[in-house]
Amino acid sequence: MSAATHQTAPTRYIEANGIRFAYRRFGVSGTVPLVFNMHFMGTMDHWDPAVTDGFAKDRDVILFDNAGVSSSSGEVPETFAQMGANAIAFIEALGLRRVDVLGFSIGGLVAQEITLQAPDLVRRLVLVGTGPRSGESMDTGTPEGKEIFGATYANPDDLWLRVHFTPSQRSQAAGREFVKRSRLRSKDRDPEVSQKSALAQRAAIGRWGAKRDRAWDYLKDIKQPTLVVNGSDDVIIYTINSYILQQHLPNAQLIIYPDSAHGSLFQYPELFVRHAAMFLDPAA
Amino acid sequence: MSAATHQTAPTRYIEANGIRFAYRRFGVSGTVPLVFNMHFMGTMDHWDPAVTDGFAKDRDVILFDNAGVSSSSGEVPETFAQMGANAIAFIEALGLRRVDVLGFSIGGLVAQEITLQAPDLVRRLVLVGTGPRSGESMDTGTPEGKEIFGATYANPDDLWLRVHFTPSQRSQAAGREFVKRSRLRSKDRDPEVSQKSALAQRAAIGRWGAKRDRAWDYLKDIKQPTLVVNGSDDVIIYTINSYILQQHLPNAQLIIYPDSAHGSLFQYPELFVRHAAMFLDPAA
Repeated sequence: MSAATHQTAPTRYIEANGIRFAYRRFGVSGTVPLVFNMHFMGTMDHWDPAVTDGFAKDRDVILFDNAGVSSSSGEVPETFAQMGANAIAFIEALGLRRVDVLGFSIGGLVAQEITLQAPDLVRRLVLVGTGPRSGESMDTGTPEGKEIFGATYANPDDLWLRVHFTPSQRSQAAGREFVKRSRLRSKDRDPEVSQKSALAQRAAIGRWGAKRDRAWDYLKDIKQPTLVVNGSDDVIIYTINSYILQQHLPNAQLIIYPDSAHGSLFQYPELFVRHAAMFLDPAA
Repeated sequence: MSAATHQTAPTRYIEANGIRFAYRRFGVSGTVPLVFNMHFMGTMDHWDPAVTDGFAKDRDVILFDNAGVSSSSGEVPETFAQMGANAIAFIEALGLRRVDVLGFSIGGLVAQEITLQAPDLVRRLVLVGTGPRSGESMDTGTPEGKEIFGATYANPDDLWLRVHFTPSQRSQAAGREFVKRSRLRSKDRDPEVSQKSALAQRAAIGRWGAKRDRAWDYLKDIKQPTLVVNGSDDVIIYTINSYILQQHLPNAQLIIYPDSAHGSLFQYPELFVRHAAMFLDPAA
């Protein structure tokens, strides 16, 4: 057990593919590391410490900024395939040969690409608030998502209250607790994602979501045990996309939580960590 | 803790609504009882001891035959509303004021009716392999279901291998283990359900499944926390019906297991009991 936590783990750097990757690593060394892949416009500081520290009690946790994001150098590529290749380069640069991969939102697209491109590297996969290539409304984005990301907010964190939580009192209250937790780390925080990088991520989303024939056949190539998780009312990447993932992946379990949205893992952090830990280590 | 188990709990009888209900009760007395509602053509001996004894480690477990089924007297009514009323009469005759209710397949229809008719009686609800009124293909039944129930089998248990499990090697192997477990109780077994009772159940299924306008609105009246569970490939009550339940119930969690069918709870008994126990007692 390293003494570091979500709040105290120093940002470190490693070079791969000509990119200087920023990362933080904490938890129980000697276990299979769990590599976290972040959402649109997100940095390492957009994770919920209740989730990351929850996992870190039992396992090695790795957060990182992919190429062109926040503290990492380079450019955000135009495709998730290239983001996946960059993530693989980062993981391998750490000397890791076998990891579990968690991807949230567009991090789930990166996580799928990692698994497709480097199947031997990935033991188990956790996909939260995400969807398949050509998923429902994933080409254009949802109307709700456009409205939410297009609006202006007095407090920048209010954006995430609308992205990650439902309008219900209970969900919004959970959201405010999440925002507080995400602000607890006071030093060595990641800078916000640049507008240029956000636009590049958005362009890549359009390519990923474009309609294709037999679009979901590729999921048959992801043979790893996979846990798919979402909120009941995700309006950023519609919840039905999680059902589609479960139905087309060869070995996937699906969990959908009540009265919750894109950020269900931040609304039910303890329950999510328990479910995911049961999935990652069934015998424990 | 009573010494009785799934194998040894004696069949007992209690009178209510003019019906002599057969039931078995075991597990930890003084806890909130979990009342099991059985599938089409099922008796108390069609439950999986790995499930019932799994729950009985921590809670009071009650199995019963509803009116007209196997060891219980009376007639199978023509509606699930009346089956629910009979189940309520049975539960109240035991002197119980608050229970958790588990319903599997058409037992899930009875469980919904119990909850709608006696909301104060029900603390939490577990719905496995089931669906809403006017659910997808629940009026006519699925073509796969008709073929499976219409075929003849050298060994009667082979019917359940096809109903409850997928054709995959892994699922069928799990199915054979389930059949063995369901045969372990050697004495005081329930007689098979009569053809007359099975036909009455089938008629009630047709009424439940009939298409209605705004068919799923009634689910808003089930305010209890609900866990919805199914296999990825249920061909008896299509898996999408579990998704519909989750989406329309106000407070429901959904879990779908990989490579599994109608009887997912019998394929993954330990995992199902862990998930359901976490749901029934979140603080434990």
